[in-house]
Amino acid sequence: MPQDSQADTTTQSAHEALKPTARAWFENLRDQICAAFEAIEDMSGHAHDDLPPGRFERTAWQRPESDESGTKGGGVMSVMRGRVFEKVGVNVSTVHGTFSEDFRKTIPGAAEDPRFWASGISLVAHLRSPRVCAAHFNTRMLVTTKGWFGGGGDITPMFPDRPEAQADAGEFHAAFRAACDGYRDGAYDEYKAWCDRYFHLPHRNEPRGLGGIFFDWLDSGDLTRDFTFVQNVGRAFLTSYPAVVRKRLAEPWTAEEREAQLYRRGRYVEFNLLHDRGTLFGLKTGGNVEAILMSLPPEVKW
Amino acid sequence: MPQDSQADTTTQSAHEALKPTARAWFENLRDQICAAFEAIEDMSGHAHDDLPPGRFERTAWQRPESDESGTKGGGVMSVMRGRVFEKVGVNVSTVHGTFSEDFRKTIPGAAEDPRFWASGISLVAHLRSPRVCAAHFNTRMLVTTKGWFGGGGDITPMFPDRPEAQADAGEFHAAFRAACDGYRDGAYDEYKAWCDRYFHLPHRNEPRGLGGIFFDWLDSGDLTRDFTFVQNVGRAFLTSYPAVVRKRLAEPWTAEEREAQLYRRGRYVEFNLLHDRGTLFGLKTGGNVEAILMSLPPEVKW
Repeated sequence: MPQDSQADTTTQSAHEALKPTARAWFENLRDQICAAFEAIEDMSGHAHDDLPPGRFERTAWQRPESDESGTKGGGVMSVMRGRVFEKVGVNVSTVHGTFSEDFRKTIPGAAEDPRFWASGISLVAHLRSPRVCAAHFNTRMLVTTKGWFGGGGDITPMFPDRPEAQADAGEFHAAFRAACDGYRDGAYDEYKAWCDRYFHLPHRNEPRGLGGIFFDWLDSGDLTRDFTFVQNVGRAFLTSYPAVVRKRLAEPWTAEEREAQLYRRGRYVEFNLLHDRGTLFGLKTGGNVEAILMSLPPEVKW
Repeated sequence: MPQDSQADTTTQSAHEALKPTARAWFENLRDQICAAFEAIEDMSGHAHDDLPPGRFERTAWQRPESDESGTKGGGVMSVMRGRVFEKVGVNVSTVHGTFSEDFRKTIPGAAEDPRFWASGISLVAHLRSPRVCAAHFNTRMLVTTKGWFGGGGDITPMFPDRPEAQADAGEFHAAFRAACDGYRDGAYDEYKAWCDRYFHLPHRNEPRGLGGIFFDWLDSGDLTRDFTFVQNVGRAFLTSYPAVVRKRLAEPWTAEEREAQLYRRGRYVEFNLLHDRGTLFGLKTGGNVEAILMSLPPEVKW
């Protein structure tokens, strides 16, 4: 899609102006999600009442000033190993730099000028209870000579065939559907299908879980509307997922269910290390290893 | 290295003639190794005397008659989940078929004729005791219009800095060194360095363990000598590794050591799913998923 330089300049200034706001939104959303999860840790009446409620620990990291890809900036990892959330990580990062030759050809707008700016939030939650779904969520803003948003969320029940799992996934999907419907007709179906394609384990021909939404290169030409959508996707996660966790909190589980959970988590690892674009991109470009692999489950069996 | 067609034909008949012998050797070595491991399971005086001694369970698998790469054949997976060996898998397979367009360019001799034959043994052992090293071993014979051997073995202590681990790795290396020395001067140094380069986690800039040997495209022109070397590499594993396991059998371990082992195993998973050529090759070419991922540890933490 060629654009005249007038339009390019307008696009660039609009994205330029939004950068601090977008970054602040991702960080504020992180604060809200962490607060919601810590509030769940404070609740009682579940299997691990005997343990102290978990709290997020934050670790800041910086990109080296000069490396292969020339990127700079950094992020903050927030990790909680709690009594409800066995391991949950919420990363925010804002980085900028210059794409290497390889990436220039594949990233929109980078062929013209290899400089980029990126900010986003990324979250993966693994619960102690095999009755509670694991979940992933992320949204990000990218700026080269073009600008766009990407992200999504998906839910992974340990027993996807059970009616309870279907109900939980239904609530999760409904929240994302509402965010999509407010953006444009057809967006939910499209982003849901994209999610199903993406979170698929080709080597096992299995879905990772019960899906959600996935979108990328979102740039309708109306930046305000696009950013509002991205915020609403964040709010959809914030309202739906903690509700799903709370709903199952009082349910006891068996040792067999726990064992099944540990094996199911193996699929999560296989997906993230073999197929996940973000993980492989991050590791290849010298990203922060701990932040990237924060998504791996706390305990797994094969 | 261009060869005249006379030499090519001679090479092909020699390799052709060796196929059944090589296959029988890999399968016989599997039997010997499994017997040695089961004999260790029968020993007493270790932490899990209360559990019944483990036995290998064999599962045969066949390649589909017709698939993308046109390969056929199959293999047998032998897996034991025992009281000393928490999880050990020994695969043998013999497959034949036609390389896809992509592979023809990269596999020696496949550009001339895409048909191939491959037979081999592959083993990964994860022990219950964090005081006992994990180990990997494999050897294989490949035939296209050319023929060659590949393989190696490496050892992964849970606490590589401890003198005990260094001693165990020393015994393991000594056996492989003897096999290499019998083959040609300099082979051990070369194959040891190759192993160190291969079993390296670039994203963490860490070695997987304390190394061993690694070789590929082995074709000196003297097929008998090469095959003898490959057999001696197998014997080196068979004599050294079970001895290393037996030596540490009576040592008790702490809960902290077990915990450290589970985290260290995470590195093994990261290596196998992110970097291991064999794993990625197998999954991409529609290999048997269970056999390929047999290498993953039984229990892991991140």
